[in-house]
Amino acid sequence: MGWAIALHGGAGDIPRFMPEERRKTREAALRHCLDIGVNALKTRRHALDVVELVVRELENHPNFNAGRGSVLTTKGTVEMEACIMDGNTKRCGAVSGLTTVVNPISLARLVMEKTPHIYLAFDGAEDFAREQGVETVDSSHFITPENVERLKQAKEANRVQLDYTQPIPKDAKSETPLADGDSQIGTVGCVAVDNEGNLASATSTGTYANNLCAISATGKGEAIIRATVARDVAALMEFKGLSLKEAAAHVVEECVPRGTVGLVAVSSTGEITMPLNTAGMFRACATEDGYSEIGIWNSEEN
Amino acid sequence: MGWAIALHGGAGDIPRFMPEERRKTREAALRHCLDIGVNALKTRRHALDVVELVVRELENHPNFNAGRGSVLTTKGTVEMEACIMDGNTKRCGAVSGLTTVVNPISLARLVMEKTPHIYLAFDGAEDFAREQGVETVDSSHFITPENVERLKQAKEANRVQLDYTQPIPKDAKSETPLADGDSQIGTVGCVAVDNEGNLASATSTGTYANNLCAISATGKGEAIIRATVARDVAALMEFKGLSLKEAAAHVVEECVPRGTVGLVAVSSTGEITMPLNTAGMFRACATEDGYSEIGIWNSEEN
Repeated sequence: MGWAIALHGGAGDIPRFMPEERRKTREAALRHCLDIGVNALKTRRHALDVVELVVRELENHPNFNAGRGSVLTTKGTVEMEACIMDGNTKRCGAVSGLTTVVNPISLARLVMEKTPHIYLAFDGAEDFAREQGVETVDSSHFITPENVERLKQAKEANRVQLDYTQPIPKDAKSETPLADGDSQIGTVGCVAVDNEGNLASATSTGTYANNLCAISATGKGEAIIRATVARDVAALMEFKGLSLKEAAAHVVEECVPRGTVGLVAVSSTGEITMPLNTAGMFRACATEDGYSEIGIWNSEEN
Repeated sequence: MGWAIALHGGAGDIPRFMPEERRKTREAALRHCLDIGVNALKTRRHALDVVELVVRELENHPNFNAGRGSVLTTKGTVEMEACIMDGNTKRCGAVSGLTTVVNPISLARLVMEKTPHIYLAFDGAEDFAREQGVETVDSSHFITPENVERLKQAKEANRVQLDYTQPIPKDAKSETPLADGDSQIGTVGCVAVDNEGNLASATSTGTYANNLCAISATGKGEAIIRATVARDVAALMEFKGLSLKEAAAHVVEECVPRGTVGLVAVSSTGEITMPLNTAGMFRACATEDGYSEIGIWNSEEN
């Protein structure tokens, strides 16, 4: 029974005609984050450490929607969130409404480990960050020029831009996606099982882990929450005896609207699955026996 | 197939030797809230309207931990939350971090019905309340003298007082609960199925409804979230074919630590169940065929 890891940098309507340079930047980022996770697993770090490390890297990368590069609120500010869950104990920690914490995922882990709570938000979460001495910066750090431009476009179109949508063309009837329309795609996440069989998941929306599997979902947060996507993959294994692949495929194909959700998942036996019903999902995975994959688009939609 | 309704005013370590007058006040409040729900069901209001109406009454009652009577933060302020879910569509709405909204449950319903979102918190939720014109008041409205005293006791004991605990005796080794130790018990909630078979649930922590059942859980929020208590009752029916009573009993007995959780649930066929593994849960229920029950303590613990 070997280790396995899968990660994502968001799912959504990723345009097929992404310029070569943009594609390569993102593939390199996925490869970099995957390597960090793989190296951690090879040196026998606990699955919880692995998913935290990987999500920190994803948060630090300005092309993914988390940490630096977070989609802006209508006020042009950032409000970041993160959640982590330990499969063995079902302990979990979550934070939201963060404006100065460099790595929200590490604060989520501190909520899990250092408090009797599961969830801290806004001022309470920021106060806790200072108590714990985690790295904080001025919130301008998180705001990228690309996201300022996207908010401007959204406001001109007089629409709230959701985190999974394309930049909105000024002619609202146009369906033509813009060539840079990949940075507002879902958020980020990572799941892993280590050599001891410990499972863990780290994401913002759609995190679940128990002793059978770990799931991180991405895409339209509302669809993920309403359908309890991450929990349902595990529940179909637990209550109905499905395999990881069967359970994940069922949830993505039958339980959420098309075009809304992708997920990455690993089981305690080292299975991996990364189904999606969106045009694309930035994703990468690897297992101890040498299998590895990096992908962006949905292979079933050509 | 008739209507059914069940509601709770929180679960926890409710002391058996509650003074007669306090017990009667709470039973009368439960009866009053139940009557409001029953009358709404008799006049063929939708299940969503029914659970919202009932939770508004529970929020308005100073002896329950929601709205007026909310447990205070360590800073002596209130941060209120609520969540509502429609079983037919799985639409849901949630709010947290409210400080001025008289009835958080009604704002949660507006999030569900008037926005593309599921969850608004703190300033964003307060701004939305003003946009929607819901009733707001100075936050001192929500702060009861009893809760100020309890916070004082908690601080003197140098402990964070969680919402399910007893007042903390100054001698921390003492296990003797105080006689007024019933007001910090969980939060409030209501589930209903109407004559059309529509299901709905309204609570703060632990709300779920689909086309099979509606669940509202109460007690230690952390245990409820970690074990996805409300969703799991429904998932055991959906994926494993258990009855409502079997599913709810399994979750409360097997999936959460003793002394942490109670829940009320109804099925689409008008079944009701109200299991608890705490010393007590303020609860009430009624069905169209004339069955009704009001209870406080755990009948299995004598």
